[in-house]
Amino acid sequence: MRELKRQLQEERKRINAVLERECSLLPPLVRPVAEHILNSGGKRLRPLLTAFMAKVFDCDHADIYDLGAAVELCHMATLLHDDIFDHAATRRGKTSAHAIFGVTPVMLAGDAMLGQAAHLASRQCNGDIVSCFGQAIVHTAQGEVAEFQSLGRIDLPYEEYLEIISGKTAWALRSACEVAAIRSGAEPEAVQAAARFGMELGIAFQIIDDALDIAPEKIIGKPAGGDIREGKSTPLIRFYWESLPSDRAAAFAAKFKERSFEESEVQAAIEAMRKEKLDVRTRRLAAQHLQNALEALKVLPEGPGRDTLVKVSEFICSRNN
Amino acid sequence: MRELKRQLQEERKRINAVLERECSLLPPLVRPVAEHILNSGGKRLRPLLTAFMAKVFDCDHADIYDLGAAVELCHMATLLHDDIFDHAATRRGKTSAHAIFGVTPVMLAGDAMLGQAAHLASRQCNGDIVSCFGQAIVHTAQGEVAEFQSLGRIDLPYEEYLEIISGKTAWALRSACEVAAIRSGAEPEAVQAAARFGMELGIAFQIIDDALDIAPEKIIGKPAGGDIREGKSTPLIRFYWESLPSDRAAAFAAKFKERSFEESEVQAAIEAMRKEKLDVRTRRLAAQHLQNALEALKVLPEGPGRDTLVKVSEFICSRNN
Repeated sequence: MRELKRQLQEERKRINAVLERECSLLPPLVRPVAEHILNSGGKRLRPLLTAFMAKVFDCDHADIYDLGAAVELCHMATLLHDDIFDHAATRRGKTSAHAIFGVTPVMLAGDAMLGQAAHLASRQCNGDIVSCFGQAIVHTAQGEVAEFQSLGRIDLPYEEYLEIISGKTAWALRSACEVAAIRSGAEPEAVQAAARFGMELGIAFQIIDDALDIAPEKIIGKPAGGDIREGKSTPLIRFYWESLPSDRAAAFAAKFKERSFEESEVQAAIEAMRKEKLDVRTRRLAAQHLQNALEALKVLPEGPGRDTLVKVSEFICSRNN
Repeated sequence: MRELKRQLQEERKRINAVLERECSLLPPLVRPVAEHILNSGGKRLRPLLTAFMAKVFDCDHADIYDLGAAVELCHMATLLHDDIFDHAATRRGKTSAHAIFGVTPVMLAGDAMLGQAAHLASRQCNGDIVSCFGQAIVHTAQGEVAEFQSLGRIDLPYEEYLEIISGKTAWALRSACEVAAIRSGAEPEAVQAAARFGMELGIAFQIIDDALDIAPEKIIGKPAGGDIREGKSTPLIRFYWESLPSDRAAAFAAKFKERSFEESEVQAAIEAMRKEKLDVRTRRLAAQHLQNALEALKVLPEGPGRDTLVKVSEFICSRNN
């Protein structure tokens, strides 16, 4: 575990160096926004996956960090745009970019970061890699619109929930892994397995993220219960709703739809979910997708690279913040 | 002239076919927004430049229309995002996308169209082409932020105005021409000349667009005087301001800064600008950049392709709508 943490730290250093370089190359009016989101924390999960997936194939091209950084630039652009339409005041406990710079510069800085990602990804002159990025951006947007349209629907079927998170979250992790396999010159089946691994891990990652909605603010850096307030239908909230007697369930569904909960009601729901350990039940859903991810990994070459990815996956799925 | 119009029409048909295909490939929740902006009119100037520039180099790869469409997808994404922060109610006389679909789906559809453009541009497996697109997106955003920050500054120096429009408008025209030259296998000097042509033409195009701010609504499809109301500093408005006696100039500058003109004041300013033919004076600024553009063209191979580009340029610079 200590060895894994050391490795993660080392890789993050290399990734951050590329991200800082790319942000410094942005023109002066979009750069401060990019630097703000870059310095707002973040685990660099996506570029870490790119770096570790390359190791599975013994690929030691230094430009693998460029690809990881390109994935992260797209991710940061998405975060900037999300915070605008979510009207989020904070991100990871810090003031949101649009609250500092205004909506217009932040929206445009997001666009610029997508452009810079394309520019960065173009260096390998590999059409498959660029196509992979392009598709990830498209599917992330589709997933986010689907989520937006699902707001307030407490009875959202699990399949639709899976479709939403596959788009809004997992596709980016998929692309992070897929580009690494392509750059490593992997065979088509191995590229597919890498993509599947990323997708399944991404789904597990998001389910756990949604389970953490009732974790204490001091641990996750944002007030608990955000999804309840925003009408974001997650398995965690659905489990709670299903546990209510029918009259209370109907009242909950109505308020969920209208996003009209009193703060005391949100707190009561959080307490009840914690007491019933519904987050633990939610995590069991993630476990299945972690299993699928590890299954996909088995197709890839054995060795310390693959072992690390297994550890990273298990680490991600057991995380508490 | 009739022959040119026929050619433009024919090329537009091929371009629109690719754009329709690409929009139909978008996932279902972002597609309607993309189709809305696609069907909101538009001259397809950028992909036309790509198609005609390819003809200069006798390049008959059918995929040149893919590249043109990718430029146009980026342009349409920019329009979607612009209309959001401009709070524009209409675009070319039709209801704005965000007024129909809401801000969130429109912002995300814009992102998806940038992704689809990257995906489309990736087909040639040419890093220089993708890099060109990426840089155009970055510089367009930079120009737009610069414009946003310049709002209300009536005394904006002409050099700063040029920088703004080089970014927000001309860079996209530049990339439209540059990718065609690259795809045609042109020599580096020819690629540079094509890029310079597009850049200078783009500057001329925007100056004329700004001169058209006092054209009648029935001709340009939007109310005259939009730039005055929005505090967008253009040569046209600056000429007017400079023509005012000092007390009225100070009052105008103050209201321009605050964006607090009465509608009657806007109309009076429009009338005065028309009477003084300040739009004609503005167009003379564009003429210099048209000249630079035609100068750059001279480096490129002679022939009917180049002749057409000359005609297209002159057509663009003499347009009245």
